Amino acid sequence: MNDSKQLKIVVINSLVAPEGADQAAQLQAERARALRIGLLENGYNILAALPPDADLAEQIAQLQPDVIIVDEQSDAALKKVVDATVNAPRPIVCFTQDKDRQKMQAAMEAGVSAYVVEGLSAERVMAVMDVALARFEVDQKLRNELSETKLKLAERKVIERAKGLLMERHHCTEDEAYKRLRRLAMDKNLKLSEVAQRMLDVADLLL
Amino acid sequence: MNDSKQLKIVVINSLVAPEGADQAAQLQAERARALRIGLLENGYNILAALPPDADLAEQIAQLQPDVIIVDEQSDAALKKVVDATVNAPRPIVCFTQDKDRQKMQAAMEAGVSAYVVEGLSAERVMAVMDVALARFEVDQKLRNELSETKLKLAERKVIERAKGLLMERHHCTEDEAYKRLRRLAMDKNLKLSEVAQRMLDVADLLL
Repeated sequence: MNDSKQLKIVVINSLVAPEGADQAAQLQAERARALRIGLLENGYNILAALPPDADLAEQIAQLQPDVIIVDEQSDAALKKVVDATVNAPRPIVCFTQDKDRQKMQAAMEAGVSAYVVEGLSAERVMAVMDVALARFEVDQKLRNELSETKLKLAERKVIERAKGLLMERHHCTEDEAYKRLRRLAMDKNLKLSEVAQRMLDVADLLL
Repeated sequence: MNDSKQLKIVVINSLVAPEGADQAAQLQAERARALRIGLLENGYNILAALPPDADLAEQIAQLQPDVIIVDEQSDAALKKVVDATVNAPRPIVCFTQDKDRQKMQAAMEAGVSAYVVEGLSAERVMAVMDVALARFEVDQKLRNELSETKLKLAERKVIERAKGLLMERHHCTEDEAYKRLRRLAMDKNLKLSEVAQRMLDVADLLL
């Protein structure tokens, strides 16, 4: 992954301005073309240029791009990309003319790795891509650590509740309760938290 | 904070190239001057341009800038800024010619909000600052959530251990143990986790 030129890129935009499109749409189509040329001139590998359609998730799952570039002004398009990658996060680079700080923040919270507001000159393409990839790595690390910590906290709550239940019913020590849970988990080939959850489910029924 | 032009900025660089400096240093000084002019032309408020000196933390604490721009090629300068803001995080915007991905990643992990590789044109100043601020907000939110979750997990471990100890010693239920802890915490005007930690400290001594 270190040589970003080996990266497979999918560009999301509406390349062809529809017949009778207004000037804004034609400008947008022009910019989209310039971006693709810039990427190609810098040696990047564009797998596909897709419109933000309903089956985006499917297409992304099939193409497995390393980076997704969103070159669309509509918030709906960005949302489609975010939704389509929620289970398999990828670096998303967003080009826009929109300077609204709230929107930037929302996009970044949704996982956008780079938000490029004033367009992209050919000589900056590679630097922007590299920064986006680095940001993605750092962001993913942080998000993974957060979800792991949250999971640990949730699991611990369940385990401690189950342990407390065992200690109460059997007048045993914490250590003994823990060993009972552990033994059951090994017997059933389950995680400690799974056994604990099952125990609590049943206890709730029996009480 | 919504109008970024009201922001107080501190620039970290060595503005004056020393007598007999090599060409690289002179270029760097030239770029530094151009950046400051660009900021001023865009209406930003530069509080100070500081060299990356030993007393940076003190100066930042005194000036209380909203954004810190690091316009220095040395990793040591960036590290000084990161260290100086570790207890009071601020958006850090880093301008560099260095395209090393490892360094980018390390800088972002340390909390750098924007990493601008190919220099800054005057018309992009505001967009870059806005993106950096939005990134800082999102990043801080994520980091705060992580540290709060970690704290909760650590506190829970301590409380559960103390509760287990009480249940074991007094042959009481989990609920009773919790109530004892809670009562003690209220009496001592302490957090539950603090009372639990004190109890464990003493128990360790007595065992």
